[in-house]
Amino acid sequence: MERLGCLVCRKEFDLNVHSPFCPECAEPLIVVSKKKVRKFHLDRNLAVEVFEDYLPLDKIDPHFSLQEGDTPIIELHRLRKDFGLPPTFAKNECLNPTASFKDRGSVVAVQKAVSLGFKSIGTISTGNMAGSTAAYAAKAGLKSVIFVKEDTTNEKIMAAGVYGPVLVKVRGDYGVLFRASFEIGRRQGIYFMNSVDPFRIEGYKATAFEIFLQMESRAPDYVIVPVSAGGHIIGLIKGFLELKEDGYLPHLPAFIGVQAKGCSPIARAFERKKPTFSRFPNPRTVAHAISNPNPPGGNLVLKLIRETGGAMIAVSDAELLKAQRLLADREGLFCDPASATVLAALLKLKKGGKLGPRSTSVLVITGSGLKTVEDLSSDSIDYHEAAVGDLETLMADIF
Amino acid sequence: MERLGCLVCRKEFDLNVHSPFCPECAEPLIVVSKKKVRKFHLDRNLAVEVFEDYLPLDKIDPHFSLQEGDTPIIELHRLRKDFGLPPTFAKNECLNPTASFKDRGSVVAVQKAVSLGFKSIGTISTGNMAGSTAAYAAKAGLKSVIFVKEDTTNEKIMAAGVYGPVLVKVRGDYGVLFRASFEIGRRQGIYFMNSVDPFRIEGYKATAFEIFLQMESRAPDYVIVPVSAGGHIIGLIKGFLELKEDGYLPHLPAFIGVQAKGCSPIARAFERKKPTFSRFPNPRTVAHAISNPNPPGGNLVLKLIRETGGAMIAVSDAELLKAQRLLADREGLFCDPASATVLAALLKLKKGGKLGPRSTSVLVITGSGLKTVEDLSSDSIDYHEAAVGDLETLMADIF
Repeated sequence: MERLGCLVCRKEFDLNVHSPFCPECAEPLIVVSKKKVRKFHLDRNLAVEVFEDYLPLDKIDPHFSLQEGDTPIIELHRLRKDFGLPPTFAKNECLNPTASFKDRGSVVAVQKAVSLGFKSIGTISTGNMAGSTAAYAAKAGLKSVIFVKEDTTNEKIMAAGVYGPVLVKVRGDYGVLFRASFEIGRRQGIYFMNSVDPFRIEGYKATAFEIFLQMESRAPDYVIVPVSAGGHIIGLIKGFLELKEDGYLPHLPAFIGVQAKGCSPIARAFERKKPTFSRFPNPRTVAHAISNPNPPGGNLVLKLIRETGGAMIAVSDAELLKAQRLLADREGLFCDPASATVLAALLKLKKGGKLGPRSTSVLVITGSGLKTVEDLSSDSIDYHEAAVGDLETLMADIF
Repeated sequence: MERLGCLVCRKEFDLNVHSPFCPECAEPLIVVSKKKVRKFHLDRNLAVEVFEDYLPLDKIDPHFSLQEGDTPIIELHRLRKDFGLPPTFAKNECLNPTASFKDRGSVVAVQKAVSLGFKSIGTISTGNMAGSTAAYAAKAGLKSVIFVKEDTTNEKIMAAGVYGPVLVKVRGDYGVLFRASFEIGRRQGIYFMNSVDPFRIEGYKATAFEIFLQMESRAPDYVIVPVSAGGHIIGLIKGFLELKEDGYLPHLPAFIGVQAKGCSPIARAFERKKPTFSRFPNPRTVAHAISNPNPPGGNLVLKLIRETGGAMIAVSDAELLKAQRLLADREGLFCDPASATVLAALLKLKKGGKLGPRSTSVLVITGSGLKTVEDLSSDSIDYHEAAVGDLETLMADIF
């Protein structure tokens, strides 16, 4: 059985999936990696198999995988030219099976759920997490329960509901719901694998390993990633820390966590040099996937970012929406507004003279724009109309 | 310069991208592959580089790629058990950069466009083709023109418009528009890479090569694929034919082309043993991506399917919608209604006793369900509602 550790209190605890938080400081617990000889199995097919030595799984059933991971890293050569940037790459997590990075966490947590004997799993989400959890439950033959906020659009409910989960639209405070889910899980034998679940975090380490391998066994200077609850960036940092521990890396990249100005509890605490964040009042941003006013991993993110010499940055909705269009229009990458924050942050660093001329950046693009088409402003996208007979005349005029 | 050939008239012609149809029989022309020693370059990164020897490209600029292809093949072990099926796999083309198989064609056609000196490309589409063409144009720094039908939803216009093409909503007959596009292209120097473009078709061959490699250098017994204009299945068949020609395969798989009953011009002609298809009157199906009443590659598909011992099958909207839910609910795969036709066809073959107990099938899943969420019937997806305080009681009741 894994031991979980609190990085703040430096204490270890037995695994209890219904209570993955430190009993003393309430910060999320993470898996204590057992010291052993670890290596990458590059001859294997699935990412979870390639990185098996780094994962807290006794066994991997390939039937539970939807072939997540192994996502492309793409040089953004046109944006580089446009803005005089140093080498810039996008790690495109949209090309996961349910079109977001969440799948990397789901596959590990679902394997763990099955090995612990659970027949049901659950999560709380308004978007990416719902679809990912329900899809992996379906593939593994588990029941799933998804709690969504009352203002979730019908389209998002359908996109998760298609996988056959028990779906509940819940009225009330999200923080209360978060805690209630673990209690319901404990009573009804449902493993609620929420945003900072320790096994999800283990799954996100694979993104760090892939970036390292795709950059020819080097780390970039910057890894820039959107931050919501905090699980994703914690996993990325843990992955690079393990690479360093195993002697693959002389030093870590700088991690830049990005939030939307309209909901930036962690970035605000970072800027004000506070040790912990406060709940963000009246969150308001188009980047819904990262609009979390009270992130359960927030303090741990602050600590890890500071210890590794990184930074938290906030960008405005105008900046991130502009970045979203730039990624599509210049690089053919259509991501969601939350993902676009990372380009906005890079351009801000560049403008502030804070980017070395030879510093390499990897932008982690976390989710597909196809799930948030309704958030594109329609007056920013023009179209013409014509009868087929008038088309030649129109085209001669406009093209 | 490539030569194009008509497989019906057995004649060859010089390449003219503005008129890729046989001047004698009007069937689509395909690239005549030059005889040479060809091999797979498995040590390379991009699919277009791996299969370069099989592609009519003088040079490949990796900067034009969005890292299309190399998509997963996944065993559908739960559906296999549910329905007593022989080995069944899904080739998941949703995991291409713009979430459909079209990207494999776009990357090859765009490379060709640049090498021919074009600064602008175009296409006609209501969905997948629009996004793919506009995205690849953006990445290559080309202008793009997208003609869409007047009933195209605003959401689909936005999902293509985000890449910055010139978009025109066109009123009138789709067949007339198809021909008009080539004329506009000729006059204005725009390479209209439409559905049966010969270089798109070359790109689709890569799917055949990957299936072969992923099945451990064998072909499956059946390759089942949705059919609209015909370009995709023509490319798949051409790919397997080239594998056979080069001695990799003793015999071809049987190709099963699937259409929706509500728009099945090719399947109807096949069933009635007609040499050519007739325009399908009053098309009506939820599988919009394959609702083409007058497919430009239809007769060629009929000919190739017959010559290789395959079949065309039509499935009803009820069958394909049920199959769509089965793929999501049992296998965690959320595809569009058009893609789901392939599972519906397989179940039909099984029910009719036409599937050998050891025959292996590959279902080609062509596009993501995320682009057609509005086509899910909302009364087929249930959800509950509760205040957070009542959640425990509700869950005890329903779970």
